[in-house]
Amino acid sequence: MLLSRIESPADLKQLSEEELEELAAELREEIIKVTSSTGGHLASSLGAVELIVALHRVFDSPRDRILFDVGHQAYAHKLLTGRRDRFSTIRQQGGLSGFTKVSESEHDAITVGHASTSLANALGMAVARDVQGEDYKIVAVIGDGALTGGMALAALNKIGELGKDMLIILNDNEMSISPNVGALAGYFKSLQVQKWVQDAEKVGKGLLERISPRLFELADRAKEATKMILHQENPFYAWNLRYVGPVDGHDLKGLVYLLERLKDLSGPTLLHVVTKKGKGYSAAEKDPTNWHGASPFNPKAPTAKKSGHTWSQAFGAAVSELAKREEKLVVITPAMREGSGLSEYAREFPERFLDVGIAEDVAVTSAAGMALAGLKPVVAIYSTFLQRAVDQVIHDVAIEKLNVVFAIDRAGLVGGDGPTHHGVFDLALLRTVPNLQIAAPKDALELRAMLAAALEQGGPVALRWPRGAVEPAPAGAWPQCNWGRWEIVKQGSEVYLLAFGKTLAYALEAAGSDPRVGVVNARFIKPLDLDTLAALAGEYRLITVEDHQRAGGFGSAVLEALESLGLRPKLRILGLPDRFSDQGKPERLHAEAGIDAAGIRKALALFGVAPGLPTPRAG
Amino acid sequence: MLLSRIESPADLKQLSEEELEELAAELREEIIKVTSSTGGHLASSLGAVELIVALHRVFDSPRDRILFDVGHQAYAHKLLTGRRDRFSTIRQQGGLSGFTKVSESEHDAITVGHASTSLANALGMAVARDVQGEDYKIVAVIGDGALTGGMALAALNKIGELGKDMLIILNDNEMSISPNVGALAGYFKSLQVQKWVQDAEKVGKGLLERISPRLFELADRAKEATKMILHQENPFYAWNLRYVGPVDGHDLKGLVYLLERLKDLSGPTLLHVVTKKGKGYSAAEKDPTNWHGASPFNPKAPTAKKSGHTWSQAFGAAVSELAKREEKLVVITPAMREGSGLSEYAREFPERFLDVGIAEDVAVTSAAGMALAGLKPVVAIYSTFLQRAVDQVIHDVAIEKLNVVFAIDRAGLVGGDGPTHHGVFDLALLRTVPNLQIAAPKDALELRAMLAAALEQGGPVALRWPRGAVEPAPAGAWPQCNWGRWEIVKQGSEVYLLAFGKTLAYALEAAGSDPRVGVVNARFIKPLDLDTLAALAGEYRLITVEDHQRAGGFGSAVLEALESLGLRPKLRILGLPDRFSDQGKPERLHAEAGIDAAGIRKALALFGVAPGLPTPRAG
Repeated sequence: MLLSRIESPADLKQLSEEELEELAAELREEIIKVTSSTGGHLASSLGAVELIVALHRVFDSPRDRILFDVGHQAYAHKLLTGRRDRFSTIRQQGGLSGFTKVSESEHDAITVGHASTSLANALGMAVARDVQGEDYKIVAVIGDGALTGGMALAALNKIGELGKDMLIILNDNEMSISPNVGALAGYFKSLQVQKWVQDAEKVGKGLLERISPRLFELADRAKEATKMILHQENPFYAWNLRYVGPVDGHDLKGLVYLLERLKDLSGPTLLHVVTKKGKGYSAAEKDPTNWHGASPFNPKAPTAKKSGHTWSQAFGAAVSELAKREEKLVVITPAMREGSGLSEYAREFPERFLDVGIAEDVAVTSAAGMALAGLKPVVAIYSTFLQRAVDQVIHDVAIEKLNVVFAIDRAGLVGGDGPTHHGVFDLALLRTVPNLQIAAPKDALELRAMLAAALEQGGPVALRWPRGAVEPAPAGAWPQCNWGRWEIVKQGSEVYLLAFGKTLAYALEAAGSDPRVGVVNARFIKPLDLDTLAALAGEYRLITVEDHQRAGGFGSAVLEALESLGLRPKLRILGLPDRFSDQGKPERLHAEAGIDAAGIRKALALFGVAPGLPTPRAG
Repeated sequence: MLLSRIESPADLKQLSEEELEELAAELREEIIKVTSSTGGHLASSLGAVELIVALHRVFDSPRDRILFDVGHQAYAHKLLTGRRDRFSTIRQQGGLSGFTKVSESEHDAITVGHASTSLANALGMAVARDVQGEDYKIVAVIGDGALTGGMALAALNKIGELGKDMLIILNDNEMSISPNVGALAGYFKSLQVQKWVQDAEKVGKGLLERISPRLFELADRAKEATKMILHQENPFYAWNLRYVGPVDGHDLKGLVYLLERLKDLSGPTLLHVVTKKGKGYSAAEKDPTNWHGASPFNPKAPTAKKSGHTWSQAFGAAVSELAKREEKLVVITPAMREGSGLSEYAREFPERFLDVGIAEDVAVTSAAGMALAGLKPVVAIYSTFLQRAVDQVIHDVAIEKLNVVFAIDRAGLVGGDGPTHHGVFDLALLRTVPNLQIAAPKDALELRAMLAAALEQGGPVALRWPRGAVEPAPAGAWPQCNWGRWEIVKQGSEVYLLAFGKTLAYALEAAGSDPRVGVVNARFIKPLDLDTLAALAGEYRLITVEDHQRAGGFGSAVLEALESLGLRPKLRILGLPDRFSDQGKPERLHAEAGIDAAGIRKALALFGVAPGLPTPRAG
């Protein structure tokens, strides 16, 4: 094993070209082996193996800074930078992050998870480097999907203007998470069929060696001349970038040769590399969407395992059914067709489905445009990604009370994706926004009831549900929704637990059959059900429980409401503490945060209502 | 007066070409007259007069939808669409909005204020139109600054892919609020010096009529052919857009002629129009930056009036002084150099100043990159625009506790800009974010103390201050900051008012010399000064006062803290109600919301501490 001898990228410099190829094969094997037992971002990491080997061969990390956009394609990078021994802990609690993470390794230049941030980071680093008179290299590796995110394009605009030295590698696999969308993607594709690339493919890898020197000669000329010759009607010309490519991203020798020659050029250069997601693992090559974030699998008999019925599927089924009777319904997603359970909907209603690509702001504001034009848009978005469109919710939707429903998936702690992806801020971000209503269903049936009611009554409504499994609701079931009213699920004589969504089950478990403990499905978070709250607060002690940050969340809303009502019951707020939660199984993280059944029981005990013990009567 | 006969855009169809020119002159006169007494967005509105007249001549609003990006250039549009009589109320409380606003007129296609939203709205509308089988026209008018915002570029990407029928007018005045930045802006400029445009300028307006037919002939060919001929190495080619231009945006006849011919083309067309900000008013033409948002002025003796010393200037002076001794300090702005008081700083420290253009997300994340590379970046940003970078604060800065200081200007109610611009959500959006500290100075001296302390101690810190005037601090004054501690400004025996920033003065006024009422400068919002809070809450009743939404704000944070401390004092929260506040003078809006001195006195009276009356002793 060559890999076992690589302790840091410096060790790559010693290998022969043939050994580098061997190393790439070993990396691929290791990635498949480990992700088959842990799950993880298999397809994108397999696609980037040769590119990463070439980068570490040519550049000098950590002195040179290699920024991986999104960071989930960097498994090979982790294996080459001193983390081989811990690689099997990836995405586990206390283990390696599934993304690059500054606090994990000096070789991880940025902490990521969300897309399109690498170029703004690279811009800042380049300014900082030059201000401080340093001369290290900066390389940003960004996928075609992430590059068409607005933030990346806007950063490119400034990078081109300043002309800072850096290398941007467009890792073009024609695929973000769902197949990529947007005019630029089509354009990149058209570049791939340019004659000389086709020639290269016909004759085989050998030819790239002949092509590369020519490219380099061109690229090395005076900048102006370069652009004139190389731009080939390409959009980067307008951005003042030197464009080189496209080249085969799996030809390791060719990549090394080219990077050696590009690394010392001044100004910004964009190298367009074409790779294949899942490269080297045929199941993933054939179905990269379903192998994007793979669950553990059997490498000998690979199937992209699906968990049972999920909240996403429950939403997808509900919205597909609703669309049959509600002609004005339309669904928007920012590149999350499969993730949001919308594959079937998109097939059935292609005209009423808009995937805007990795552009959450565009998703929300195009929904505003649709609402202004008479439709009833549903924006299907993960909680963590809605963070990227807060202003659009406020400015484009809420001010004019437009009929937009936000279907917020993966709210709460999400698991292995960790702190960049936990959906634990949405309630705080949204509940300060006027005109917006917020609700959270306890199960798939209530999801259907709320979704239908939200569309019916109009105005902006946010519905949130967690990641993971949920009991499916029967097709055709459309229960009434008593909009705005909480549901008293269990009566109690001393304390009421106010919970919703995922924490409702914990509350019921904690209450058990104790007659002193009542449980409320506090499913409407904005506005709160003030009548029920006032009635309870006048007589009972209260404990709120939420899978969300304590700061600014549901409990905080209850406190504000009680202040308005002039009520001061004894109350405890259970929520996530004021720090970024680790990656790990949500149930375990809930336990650590004290919001699971055991945590609730502890809070009950502090109120003198310890399970199984009589209550000492006190005010 | 022709203008007095225009009740709706339909009336423009009756006018002769000469009358249209006359109308444009009258519009310009009216805009100067009214803004000289009310203030307003003079320069951009003057620049768009001919374009707006031409649009309403050719298109059929409100059936056809004309979307003005940002919406502050649309004064002529307001005058032509039935709002002439109320035009003098613009930006006043209860009057016309300074931007387009859906709820104000059926002719206002979108509600705006923030930049770069028009294309996503247009995308949504075009999808909605086609789904519903309608056939109206959609025209988006977007400035060169706004077009380089990421959200606009990402929307363009999708518009090009879908090939929806729409006309995008790039209103290129080489200027967003500050002179425009970015590679694309340079590129647009280069288009303007193409030979045939220069010819047109030489020979005069007449020539455009000869050029336009040629353009039209080209544009009207099959789409592919059009692109091949027209793209002229332009970036819109890659986006699958038909590009026409650049043309003179003040040649009314030429514009009408061209729009008539472009309006029925299928697919998306981009018309590049070159205009001059402040056109027709020489003072504004010469200095469009200072005339961007003009204060009332004397039209006979025009000077862009400046209010007295502002918070922005206080920040600018402080940061310039600090930069002299702190070499690692660097300042980033998203196109708000002047607005944020940074003109002098930028002149003095050009290497350590980065204006990223209208791209708040890039501003925050490039600051992250700088911090990662060893600098101490200060992001100067308005509260309302920070809403556009919430995820970047969370994901790119806070997770790794990077040394980034957010200098948040215009927090609280801002005045005439109204609901799109009020900075009343920042505390709620930010205080849910772990690792971030939040503080608000009471005056310019405290701003200096806090800024220096924030840079010194490291980690992400947000400092917020309001729009408007503040007593200047003496140069060289760098008082110590007792970081994290509140300041008891006045002792009291019954009730303590917890206020900060702008509301501190209200609290002091309300307390007067009443010995029962204490006042605290609760300047640290996250973390709160728990020691002081606990000491006060144990003995006194409390009233919190903030120039921010009640929902999720400072008062809410105090409630959460008291819950943690297990304290339940009598407490009232004064803040802004759960609706979008109107435009108007902040002082008057504060009074209406009950957070001014009179409002605080009312709250005191409810606690039995009416000014001038003895307190009835009660628990």
